[in-house]
Amino acid sequence: MSTRPQIDPPYLLFLGDARDELAAKTARGVFVFRPEWCLGQIRLAGCNARLDLPEMTVDEAAAKGAKSLIVGVANAGGVVSDSWIDTLVAALEAGLDLASGLHVRLGDLPAVREAAERRGRRLFDARHPPQAFKVGTGTKRAGKRLLTVGTDASVGKMYATLALEAEWRRRGVACSFRATGQTGIFIAGEGVSVDAVVADFISGATEWLTPENAPDHWDLVEGQGSLFHPSYAGVTLGLIHGAQPDAIVVCHEPTRTHMRGLPEWPLPELGACIEANLQAARLTNPAVVCAGLCVNTQALGEAEAEALLADLGRAHGLPCVDPIRTGVGAIADRLI
Amino acid sequence: MSTRPQIDPPYLLFLGDARDELAAKTARGVFVFRPEWCLGQIRLAGCNARLDLPEMTVDEAAAKGAKSLIVGVANAGGVVSDSWIDTLVAALEAGLDLASGLHVRLGDLPAVREAAERRGRRLFDARHPPQAFKVGTGTKRAGKRLLTVGTDASVGKMYATLALEAEWRRRGVACSFRATGQTGIFIAGEGVSVDAVVADFISGATEWLTPENAPDHWDLVEGQGSLFHPSYAGVTLGLIHGAQPDAIVVCHEPTRTHMRGLPEWPLPELGACIEANLQAARLTNPAVVCAGLCVNTQALGEAEAEALLADLGRAHGLPCVDPIRTGVGAIADRLI
Repeated sequence: MSTRPQIDPPYLLFLGDARDELAAKTARGVFVFRPEWCLGQIRLAGCNARLDLPEMTVDEAAAKGAKSLIVGVANAGGVVSDSWIDTLVAALEAGLDLASGLHVRLGDLPAVREAAERRGRRLFDARHPPQAFKVGTGTKRAGKRLLTVGTDASVGKMYATLALEAEWRRRGVACSFRATGQTGIFIAGEGVSVDAVVADFISGATEWLTPENAPDHWDLVEGQGSLFHPSYAGVTLGLIHGAQPDAIVVCHEPTRTHMRGLPEWPLPELGACIEANLQAARLTNPAVVCAGLCVNTQALGEAEAEALLADLGRAHGLPCVDPIRTGVGAIADRLI
Repeated sequence: MSTRPQIDPPYLLFLGDARDELAAKTARGVFVFRPEWCLGQIRLAGCNARLDLPEMTVDEAAAKGAKSLIVGVANAGGVVSDSWIDTLVAALEAGLDLASGLHVRLGDLPAVREAAERRGRRLFDARHPPQAFKVGTGTKRAGKRLLTVGTDASVGKMYATLALEAEWRRRGVACSFRATGQTGIFIAGEGVSVDAVVADFISGATEWLTPENAPDHWDLVEGQGSLFHPSYAGVTLGLIHGAQPDAIVVCHEPTRTHMRGLPEWPLPELGACIEANLQAARLTNPAVVCAGLCVNTQALGEAEAEALLADLGRAHGLPCVDPIRTGVGAIADRLI
């Protein structure tokens, strides 16, 4: 259990033939949070996404020291386009490793597998953890842990967690961002896609991901799904139990009208969401607290956003921030 | 999604070299609940378990009409002993299918795979669902559903569910036992080992297992784990959401001093357990009720058991039964 597969930076970001900006959101996330790891981008014919990075060939990237090509684009169905294969093989030939978060395994693409074997390069599939996990034990581990949770899936939990990491580092507090989804894994260079592990091992995989540490070290753990999302709540609960958080931060998107992908499902009330997550977390850490709210106010005007953050903060008696608009300093003030 | 792999009875039960009765508990469970499907048993040298069934060779079983050999024994580590291979291959040669709930896949044993291919027989691995599941949707389905839940893992949920099925049938109510673990799957001849599916699909696999049905048909769904078990609660929650039960029945073992496998973890208080399960179930079925308590009083004397059942029933205002000692009629009275 000691091998912790790692993706080596710097990265060359592959945007492929991304239909739109959304299709390249993985590449964008990596570039936003780890610009210092990103040397360049590759865009194929028909690509409608673009990052503020030099366009370069795999050979140019290799010459500049790139170690890994990140497949930062998603197609409908999570498949690999035939048009991508030449570039993926060329990257291996140039000495780069490949990393992907697609459903298909890179090693299941014959030309890619053959080139990787011939050149001795690594294929990293974020959705297919190579480790064998154990079932969780709930045993208390030294070190502090914070977990982001949410009223829904895709409400900014990864973004909030990374903003907390940046704030912790700014204050000189020892911490690790613990990635639980594909984009987060490319940003951390390691992690576990917890929704891809076998159900019996959700909490065990999370325990492995957030191991015992120095008493004043913080693991800042990226949350997944929502206890209130009928598709994914099992993943969320196992993640909560395995992380045994000392603190949770509840993430919310105030303009969302229904649970992601389920038009008939209303969002939970924020207070009920806070309480349900605390109740779940108490099983493995009775001392857990809610340290604040992270609200994505991107869709609101400045005055409206300020009023909403103030209202929610007052209503719940908690620091209430927008990681982008206000920063997360108020949450750090409470915990550090 | 329409292929529902099925194990054909009658069965020949393979007890192998079971070290003790516990190692053969899968075979025993099948024999107790489906005696009419069980033609005989095979015991190897060193087997310390025994069922009240004729011992026979695979050829004798085949001649009597056996269709499947069930691997009803578990070794430490879930491995297949070398000493089993000859019998498994002989069963395939005699025209039987094989079914196993071990961690190792039958098809990963070269001699077994080769024999199955040569003879055109099926290998059924209860822990490795062959279906591709979808994520759950939470969409309301016609038909009634009951799910057993518990204060802990292994407190008799499968037993209670099968007792409910027998009672429902006795009263002429249309119902299906829905198996979610390996022994249950051999008893039903089909099912999904929900702790073995990829985490993203726990509720989706359960929705697939308990499909839309006639309005007065009951699915009686075998529960797994416990919301209060830090190793398995994620599986339990996904199963609750996917089953969208109209009724839950809470199972309990009153002499257990700690959560299974975790000596430092106390059991939850029964009232808190009822409420937490109802709260979780309300997400996909706001009308869910708790229909009763099933308490395993095997370790208690007659008078003590009667007093306990009466006390718990009064304390929680629910029918409180021991499926073996009293039957589950009081729960059926409430629901049917």
